[in-house]
Amino acid sequence: MAFWLNGAYREDSTAIDIADRGFLLGDGVFETILLSGGLPAFLSAHLARMRAGAEALGIEAKIDEAAIAGALAELARRNEAQEGFASARLTLTRGVGPRGLVVAKGVAKPTLLATADAYAPPDGAEALRFIVSRQRRNELSAASRWKTLNYLDNILARAQATEAGADDALMLNSAGRIACASAANIFLIRGESVTTPPVSEGALPGIVRAVLLENAGAAGVEMREAPVEAKDLDGAALFVTNSLVGLRPAALRGGAPDGEAQVLKRLQSCYGEAMKRDLEGRAGQ
Amino acid sequence: MAFWLNGAYREDSTAIDIADRGFLLGDGVFETILLSGGLPAFLSAHLARMRAGAEALGIEAKIDEAAIAGALAELARRNEAQEGFASARLTLTRGVGPRGLVVAKGVAKPTLLATADAYAPPDGAEALRFIVSRQRRNELSAASRWKTLNYLDNILARAQATEAGADDALMLNSAGRIACASAANIFLIRGESVTTPPVSEGALPGIVRAVLLENAGAAGVEMREAPVEAKDLDGAALFVTNSLVGLRPAALRGGAPDGEAQVLKRLQSCYGEAMKRDLEGRAGQ
Repeated sequence: MAFWLNGAYREDSTAIDIADRGFLLGDGVFETILLSGGLPAFLSAHLARMRAGAEALGIEAKIDEAAIAGALAELARRNEAQEGFASARLTLTRGVGPRGLVVAKGVAKPTLLATADAYAPPDGAEALRFIVSRQRRNELSAASRWKTLNYLDNILARAQATEAGADDALMLNSAGRIACASAANIFLIRGESVTTPPVSEGALPGIVRAVLLENAGAAGVEMREAPVEAKDLDGAALFVTNSLVGLRPAALRGGAPDGEAQVLKRLQSCYGEAMKRDLEGRAGQ
Repeated sequence: MAFWLNGAYREDSTAIDIADRGFLLGDGVFETILLSGGLPAFLSAHLARMRAGAEALGIEAKIDEAAIAGALAELARRNEAQEGFASARLTLTRGVGPRGLVVAKGVAKPTLLATADAYAPPDGAEALRFIVSRQRRNELSAASRWKTLNYLDNILARAQATEAGADDALMLNSAGRIACASAANIFLIRGESVTTPPVSEGALPGIVRAVLLENAGAAGVEMREAPVEAKDLDGAALFVTNSLVGLRPAALRGGAPDGEAQVLKRLQSCYGEAMKRDLEGRAGQ
């Protein structure tokens, strides 16, 4: 499997230094990106989020959009994933540094890794079954605003879902309100109106989430960010979003009401159109 | 620099797979261990904590105390750190696994890395200057009970201290009470009585902390675990502990009161004796 590490294409997967701070301390950020025909969907938005995280963490990396788009297309080609969809991941760490928590400016040379692999999106019609996890998401940590390498809380939440025979888990924030799923944002449909927790509640600022917040109005769906209590989920029609699956219906303990399926379909279509525009823009570059 | 990876001594530091879940998701635990004359202090306690973390995370690793003690001694020898003190680190990750948050049992082969390097403990007489960080420690996450690779909150707290011209930062828990420092436990001295936040408050279950809780009584110091409010720190004599520095005086914005220095000295001596017993026991093995 070919990958791209600090600007070079390689195939020898043993490529990370034992002193890389991503490996030792989770000191970095990442993005999971859907490729369609070798083109990365919403790459500008993904890289904006990655840059924001890197800047906040003081990781001095050059994140060059054209170079990354080129690398992802080339990886899709080399890994025979240029037809249909592929799943790509960008991982940026502070790189190799001395012992200790803080590294002085200019000392560590960041590590930037890109991988891309063929990916078949799920059918998506059936609702994913959710539990509410015991694991809490720490909305009081600045790190909850970025997609960092610190994924243990999410791993534990997902493991709890697997144990319970569910597909995924919702995570509460420190105040006991809904933040997001282990690797997705959560939305509640009520009539023509859709609610999702704000980032200040511990929701990851998801890329699909941002696309929907921007475009739902044009599709005739009122979408707002507001705190969501766990009890609000009872009987609500739910869906989740992430960059690989797009929008998928979700249900908490039992089936979701059918009444809101039309709203979800409109939003799925709205998202599909937005992605199409984004990919057409990129293909034209 | 020699290191020990999955049972083999190596020197080629580019040794970690790009798909190692420690690197990609912070999916693992670690220990920082003081070596004295090539002997690891409190190794049994460190490995008990590592085993507890691994078991909770479902990382199916063999953690063999005799093999690890032998490897650390050999690394100290190879890295010319067998005289005086050395700083060792054990890093255990879930290893290389497929994409996604959860890995089925038996699929990933864990990665176990040991490093050891010469280390000069600080003089230790001068009080470390602390700030209280904006970063919160998530005591509501089960992961706060183990020494995991998810260190970004701690890194951000320490970076804030560095920016403020301080040595380190205390972290509050989600309830706004004191949890611990970015890489140390915190203790308050009042007269002959010493208080430290319990693990349920988000304190990392530190090895030095546990040694003190077990042995302070014999040194005539009453030590108890109790929640600590930020305001309790005003004017209190403080000290911090971790495996590399032992016990060090600490001060919040200005100097600590001098009156309690005798209690700290008694505890430092009590800890030194406990370490001596532990190392003598290991040398005799």
